[in-house]
Amino acid sequence: MTQSPIRFSFLPRRIISCWNPANRRHFSTTPPALRAIIQESSKTKPIMATLTTKTGQVVDRSVLDSMLRRRLFYTPSFEIYGGVSGLYDYGPPGCAVLNNIVETWRKHFVLEEDMLEVDCTMLTPEEVLKTSGHVDKFADWMCKDPKTGEIFRADHLVEEVLEARLKGDKEARGQKVEVDAEKEAKKKKKAKSVAVKLDDAVVKEYEEILAQIDNFDGPQLEQIIAKYDIRNPVTGGNLLPPVAFNLMFQTSIGPSSNMPGYLRPETAQGQFLNFQKLLEFNQQAMPFASASIGKSFRNEISPRAGLLRVREFLMAEIEHFVDPEGGKKHARFEEVKNIELTLLNRDVQLSGSTKTERMTVGKAVETGLVDNETLGYFLARIQLFLLKLGVDPTKLRFRQHMANEMAHYACDCWDAELYTSYGWIECVGCADRSAYDLNVHKNKTGAPLVVRETRAEPLKVEEWQIELDKKKFGPRFKKDGKTVEAAIDALSQELREKLALDLEKTGKIEVGYIITIEKRTRVENVREYTPNVIEPSFGIGRILYSLMEHVYYYREGDEARGVLSFPPVIAPTKVLLVPLSSNPAFRPMVQELTTKLRRLGVSSRVDDSSASIGKRYARNDELGTPFGVTVDFQSVKDNTITLRDRDSTKQVRASQEEILQALKSLVEGEETWEDVRKRLPEFTGQEVD
Amino acid sequence: MTQSPIRFSFLPRRIISCWNPANRRHFSTTPPALRAIIQESSKTKPIMATLTTKTGQVVDRSVLDSMLRRRLFYTPSFEIYGGVSGLYDYGPPGCAVLNNIVETWRKHFVLEEDMLEVDCTMLTPEEVLKTSGHVDKFADWMCKDPKTGEIFRADHLVEEVLEARLKGDKEARGQKVEVDAEKEAKKKKKAKSVAVKLDDAVVKEYEEILAQIDNFDGPQLEQIIAKYDIRNPVTGGNLLPPVAFNLMFQTSIGPSSNMPGYLRPETAQGQFLNFQKLLEFNQQAMPFASASIGKSFRNEISPRAGLLRVREFLMAEIEHFVDPEGGKKHARFEEVKNIELTLLNRDVQLSGSTKTERMTVGKAVETGLVDNETLGYFLARIQLFLLKLGVDPTKLRFRQHMANEMAHYACDCWDAELYTSYGWIECVGCADRSAYDLNVHKNKTGAPLVVRETRAEPLKVEEWQIELDKKKFGPRFKKDGKTVEAAIDALSQELREKLALDLEKTGKIEVGYIITIEKRTRVENVREYTPNVIEPSFGIGRILYSLMEHVYYYREGDEARGVLSFPPVIAPTKVLLVPLSSNPAFRPMVQELTTKLRRLGVSSRVDDSSASIGKRYARNDELGTPFGVTVDFQSVKDNTITLRDRDSTKQVRASQEEILQALKSLVEGEETWEDVRKRLPEFTGQEVD
Repeated sequence: MTQSPIRFSFLPRRIISCWNPANRRHFSTTPPALRAIIQESSKTKPIMATLTTKTGQVVDRSVLDSMLRRRLFYTPSFEIYGGVSGLYDYGPPGCAVLNNIVETWRKHFVLEEDMLEVDCTMLTPEEVLKTSGHVDKFADWMCKDPKTGEIFRADHLVEEVLEARLKGDKEARGQKVEVDAEKEAKKKKKAKSVAVKLDDAVVKEYEEILAQIDNFDGPQLEQIIAKYDIRNPVTGGNLLPPVAFNLMFQTSIGPSSNMPGYLRPETAQGQFLNFQKLLEFNQQAMPFASASIGKSFRNEISPRAGLLRVREFLMAEIEHFVDPEGGKKHARFEEVKNIELTLLNRDVQLSGSTKTERMTVGKAVETGLVDNETLGYFLARIQLFLLKLGVDPTKLRFRQHMANEMAHYACDCWDAELYTSYGWIECVGCADRSAYDLNVHKNKTGAPLVVRETRAEPLKVEEWQIELDKKKFGPRFKKDGKTVEAAIDALSQELREKLALDLEKTGKIEVGYIITIEKRTRVENVREYTPNVIEPSFGIGRILYSLMEHVYYYREGDEARGVLSFPPVIAPTKVLLVPLSSNPAFRPMVQELTTKLRRLGVSSRVDDSSASIGKRYARNDELGTPFGVTVDFQSVKDNTITLRDRDSTKQVRASQEEILQALKSLVEGEETWEDVRKRLPEFTGQEVD
Repeated sequence: MTQSPIRFSFLPRRIISCWNPANRRHFSTTPPALRAIIQESSKTKPIMATLTTKTGQVVDRSVLDSMLRRRLFYTPSFEIYGGVSGLYDYGPPGCAVLNNIVETWRKHFVLEEDMLEVDCTMLTPEEVLKTSGHVDKFADWMCKDPKTGEIFRADHLVEEVLEARLKGDKEARGQKVEVDAEKEAKKKKKAKSVAVKLDDAVVKEYEEILAQIDNFDGPQLEQIIAKYDIRNPVTGGNLLPPVAFNLMFQTSIGPSSNMPGYLRPETAQGQFLNFQKLLEFNQQAMPFASASIGKSFRNEISPRAGLLRVREFLMAEIEHFVDPEGGKKHARFEEVKNIELTLLNRDVQLSGSTKTERMTVGKAVETGLVDNETLGYFLARIQLFLLKLGVDPTKLRFRQHMANEMAHYACDCWDAELYTSYGWIECVGCADRSAYDLNVHKNKTGAPLVVRETRAEPLKVEEWQIELDKKKFGPRFKKDGKTVEAAIDALSQELREKLALDLEKTGKIEVGYIITIEKRTRVENVREYTPNVIEPSFGIGRILYSLMEHVYYYREGDEARGVLSFPPVIAPTKVLLVPLSSNPAFRPMVQELTTKLRRLGVSSRVDDSSASIGKRYARNDELGTPFGVTVDFQSVKDNTITLRDRDSTKQVRASQEEILQALKSLVEGEETWEDVRKRLPEFTGQEVD
């Protein structure tokens, strides 16, 4: 199964968590050091992590969130029908930012690196996902309350109840309890904490369970639920034992019921299935990468955490196919090797710390910390991409998966994590998946998902070959002939050698008169191999949400005046056109500016409402519009207009032509605001609330 | 239910057909004139319509199709697992063209017209689609063979069997039978025609049934199947009576089974549900349009016809909300009124002809042929969009829906149809849907999906008002009070007047002592109305496929050398870079050109394979790459390169800088090839096969 950004790593999972096939399979006890990190993390940020803006202000998530909803960045889907948890629509500004992120991604990866972009269907027949492992293993554990019919995600339930008990214990001991957590619990009608003191030993047991809550399988959760008498937190009713719930949305393709299908849980499978055609399209040249941008689906049991855990989400995935031999070098590694990354390596995590270190990609690969050049190349490219979007570099780190977090076939895996009010969130996964995916589909279907290349020099292999005397072999084994032949073919070189020696020495082998075993030289002109896959996998919705937290701040002294300081390339609208008033004298020039900006490829909007200029700018600060242009009476007289910068709120005034040119170069990133401010005369009138 | 481009109109339906709610409900007999058109059409193009290229060559669909698959424009999904009918993946060039169409659409509609783009979920709870009518009516009729388990779409089956019999009759009468049709039938293992002569009367009956095959409901199809003894065409087995099969993919949202959901069959519903928020986002200003681009799903019973009938498809839909009063004017109508369209109006169709006429949009609206300015505006804008993509204007027409084709609430509807080898294909629908959608959701949920605007002058309404004497009313009606009050509220003005007169004249009304009826003047300061919706709805996959047929031609005399003459804005790659040979001397300049082109925003690819330059160009003609640049020994000496135009195959030679500038202006549409050819020196060497 694919490591994807949608699977949280364990650290943020204390707050929001999800299924991790590797965890479930290989991670049954948490090393003590890790428990410490987790416990520390859970103590300091029980529900909301402390997030500060670039300007050092403390972010109140509820204020930001209400602004994002009010300005229709996103909104719960089907709200007039009561809504459906885990489903959100993006309104105009959210949709524009999403499109800009996608376009930037496509330029940065697909075009810049000549990747082969494909668009595969979301509907997927069961057989494909059976082979990939999703049908059997892509599941969470859930408990049903037989009386009320309510369904709980088993690990969430244990977590919630034990946390409430620990809180009650704290209260009973007279300790301070976080107010935020209290509020949240009340709002969500969850387990109430009752001030009951627990034994010290019990507190320790609870804490240990919570520290490794992600690692329990169904039977283990069942034991915990029974042992600690965990019930429906609201009614107190007993629950049925946990059962596995597959997280894929199931449906049926076609009119008969004999083709069950699912909505894809990731875009990767479509790329693997088309490998052979893509290789041919690429004129058999290796290495190459395919890429895909599209929606995927996961039927979460009880989604929480807004845009970070949704049932339908946009992914962008790259599958870079590379020869497993030759160290997985990358031709453009030179270009990135001096880029510094913030790394949290697995040894540091094992030692119980979350201390990161800054290191160049070159050094990380050289020292073997990052497994190979190709993986390192993508880590650097991922960082460049995220910074282009406006991600705060101090809130970005690459965390290495520990051996027991990775799937058994993966050689190395790093997550790009962004720090948000929910803690560190995995937004991009970058895994070396070896040949796993191509192999399982090849084995299932027989399709040659391999590379065949002519050897520069033919390979000579000395080996023990077996020849059968067909004339004698057939009559001797009759209908068992095929089976026997296959068994002989499957004999290892070691066995063949032993057999040959036995035959020579003793002549005792019963079938000796039928077979000849000889050491011969075979010449291979063609090399056949299954490529390995390096998979950078992006959760676009998560990146968008984290980005909004990163670019948010508010005007000093007024939390109600929020600003989203998107870089121009990402901002929903680049320029706001503001006529001083609704006086018809301004209309022709506003119209003219709109047309000219469109011709320059710069998107603009007009706000000619009756609100004051200051209010109109404030409104567009919330939308992240980086530049504003005012048309006033002087404009009509002398054709000059003012240009305002969102972040500094400084203005310059110059001729229409000069301002338009400045806008074009600002939006295309050729000049910064500082450059423009220096070369054009400052303006200090007008912005009044 | 929304009219969408995915529902074919009846003409192409002779070949590919689908469900049409309006048809099913209101269209039970085809007017004789129409039957004539349909029959004529089915006689002349039984399976494949004759399509000629822009250059006048006859298109062989199988040749084109094999080229499109070979070059990975598209490919059947899950092919290594045997494939799933109706599901296709787009490979790199198809995906690039798709992205370019979407980007052009977004610029042409969303940005150019300040539309509010939203991105809503595909997963949709049942209640929403129950309200919209899809749960009850979005269905086709299917018949099951109880022995084999096979399922047939009832209308397709009748059609196939009767056509086979008619063909057998022709054979028996010694008439010529189309070879193509014969071949297709054999390939698809469908009903075989057996040379059996039919009575003339029977032939006439069959032809009449085929002419109106789209208009039969389940019981009617059942009768036909029984009367004409229609069976499983392969086994001859009897079939069960037709049952309705809903075309939506069903699933279940969340872990309990109490939230059934569907994959949306169109993007429109999400836009309607968010109307109120969008209106607020637009600062209550009317009119405005929302827009959405995304996948929709229809679980076709037995999809045929390649990319034209698929189970998962990309749509782009606009919902333009407009005040129903004031004639639905459009502020920018002036800009388009002189644009000429090819129109096939409903009267012409009713008279039995398919004769189109050229008319300006201005005249079409003025004469009332097109219902209103807003609808006319969008027809013109749709045409401009399609032509920008490279659609052949001679293969584009707008066909008006006939009264009995439209949903009962629609006032006017036009389809933009593109002529293809499958006949005329509906690719864009443009309907005036009145207030239907907002009303049904408003009535169901109580959400105020309305516009409230302050009247410039208060409206004075003289009306009969009824007042109840609450003190007497309550005791008189007790628990029925509310019902009685509601009934009184609902009385029409006419009835109230009559009641008032009766009361005055006779005093005989039993409840006269409780109510007062008086003519009074009510002053309305706020006007409340439900906007009407004009809905242009684009089937992007269909446009893409039709476009590929429109831009296709082959080099004179060599059908194997196909060309896709996409305009630069749509072409997957803009420039092919071709070094004369694999000589390393060329590499630095090729690399330099790549970098410079990228900086100019022009996508390019390098083909440095060992094939001849002519072969490399031919390969890229198939991919639709409009320009080629060759680097040869002279380039290395004097820094000149050649530029080749795909369609004329002419070349010019100039300095790197001049050619790069020319490429930029060609790709951005500022110059045509003719302009460039005139100002730069021609080059006539090099292109050899």
